[in-house]
Order: sequence, then structure tokens, then C-alpha cells
Amino acid sequence: MNTMSPPEGQLSIDQCWVMLDTETVGRIALIVDAHPEIFPVNFVLQRRSIVFRTAGGTKLWAAMTAKPVAFEIDGYDAHEEMAWSVVARGEAELIETQDEKDEVDALFLEPWQPGDKDYYVRLAPKALTGRRFKVKKPDLWNTRLSDPRRAAFE
Amino acid sequence: MNTMSPPEGQLSIDQCWVMLDTETVGRIALIVDAHPEIFPVNFVLQRRSIVFRTAGGTKLWAAMTAKPVAFEIDGYDAHEEMAWSVVARGEAELIETQDEKDEVDALFLEPWQPGDKDYYVRLAPKALTGRRFKVKKPDLWNTRLSDPRRAAFE
Repeated sequence: MNTMSPPEGQLSIDQCWVMLDTETVGRIALIVDAHPEIFPVNFVLQRRSIVFRTAGGTKLWAAMTAKPVAFEIDGYDAHEEMAWSVVARGEAELIETQDEKDEVDALFLEPWQPGDKDYYVRLAPKALTGRRFKVKKPDLWNTRLSDPRRAAFE
Repeated sequence: MNTMSPPEGQLSIDQCWVMLDTETVGRIALIVDAHPEIFPVNFVLQRRSIVFRTAGGTKLWAAMTAKPVAFEIDGYDAHEEMAWSVVARGEAELIETQDEKDEVDALFLEPWQPGDKDYYVRLAPKALTGRRFKVKKPDLWNTRLSDPRRAAFE
């Protein structure tokens, strides 16, 4: 473990990886036709890289490959009343060999969207930053996970 | 309510607004220096627009104003074993008058990050899309909210 303490409110690289290891859903932001796009993906970690599958198609993949992407996870710890977020930045690369795909499948990567997922994508972050802080109005945050209004839709 | 049913798996515009009304945290994706950026914000709805505060500073604001942004929320309904996401696209605008800021404050908008939030930002979506679907491996998804490994960090 990294024994250096990061500045107040910032997560160390090691802490960022731990948070990535606890989550299964993140969001990819990328640029498509000069517009920012964002979509959720289910992901796994593999050798300190973030791996996900997408059926986004050729256009999405062309926008992603060898170009900068950002990947985000966030959460709220109701017990500690702490919110946190982690952002990974880097370039996405396609996983092309069947051996590598099999290795990813063995990690139980389940795609977010249903249907066939043609592309296996890896993001080895060049930068990894995270924040964690006490929220001011815990009651307001708690509604995020337990809001009874949600029942109206479901 | 909109009585037209959207295609299987897609949410209607009205359903998207209902989901937006149930959440308090979303993520903004935008382009900064030709790179995609993504960060979480706490938001409120006001007259069918998404309003949030940010202390991102001049650079971030310059990248956001009058330029396309994307805003995303997602979630998982463990009872129904359904995952969902909503993405709003449009251009962000600065809320400048104190009257408008007061109106936003009255909606109990609490910023995600601590500290002073200089900018009040409004996104009136030009496009609003949402998806909802049954997940294939509910056990895997349930860990998202109840993963015991999270205790190792917290």
C-alpha cells in the first residue's frame, strides 16, 4: 500500500483502485462528432486496467480508439455520510485476440446493455484521480438510494 | 402523461423526466482542450431543465458555455432486476441573476463538491433518451449497492 497520504479530500492512487475494484458500473465519456457522449458500462479490472464490452458499433468505436476517453465512478457511503468519485483518463484500446477475450470472460464481465457485445475495450489509465468528502446535508443524499418517489415509476 | 409507448427497452420522454426527478446526482460530460471530461454533480429540476452548481472555474465554464454537454443518470432496481440510464444532451447556460439563483436555492440544490460554488448552470435538454432493461445476472448487479468488499476501503 502507498503510505503517502494524499491531500485532504483526495484519494491516493491505491484508494482509487480499491474503489474501482468495489464497483461494477461506470460511465465512459468520449467525443463523437465534436460532441461529448456519455454512457454507462459494466466493467471489470484486469491487471490495473478497466475492461468493458460495448456494442456501440463502428462509429462509436472509431471515436474511442486511440483517442482520449474519461471513465467515472461515484458513490455515497450513507454510514460515513461521505460522497466520493474516481475519474480515470487515458486512451481506449481494442482487445482483439480470442485468448484475451476469454481471459476477460473468465472475470465474469457482464455487459450493461443486453444483446451482443462486439467490442472488448481496455482502458489503462494514464491518470487516476479521486475525491472523497463529507456531505453537508446527509438527509438529502440518503434519498438517492431510498427515495420513495422512485416507486411512482417502477 | 404521454400515452404513446416507446419501443421495447426505451423510456419515453415523460419516463426520462420522472427518473430525473428521482435522482439527485448525475454526471456532466464535456470537452475541455479536445479531451472529454466527466464529473458528478448534484442537481435539481426546474421547469424541465437540469440545474447544478459548480466551482469548476473559468476554464471549465468556458468549455461548457454555449457548447454541447451531455448529462447522465443511471441506476439499478434490485426488486425488478432492471437497470436503467437516461442521457440529456444540450447546451449549458449560466444562471446570472440573483433572483434566478435564489429560486434555485429554494429547491434545496446542494452541490456535490464542498466549498463555494460560483457558477449556477442550467441545461435545458434538446434531446432526452433513456433505456431500461432486465439484467442477465442479478446477483452480479446486486453487489453494486451491497458489496462487502467496500468495507475494506471505508
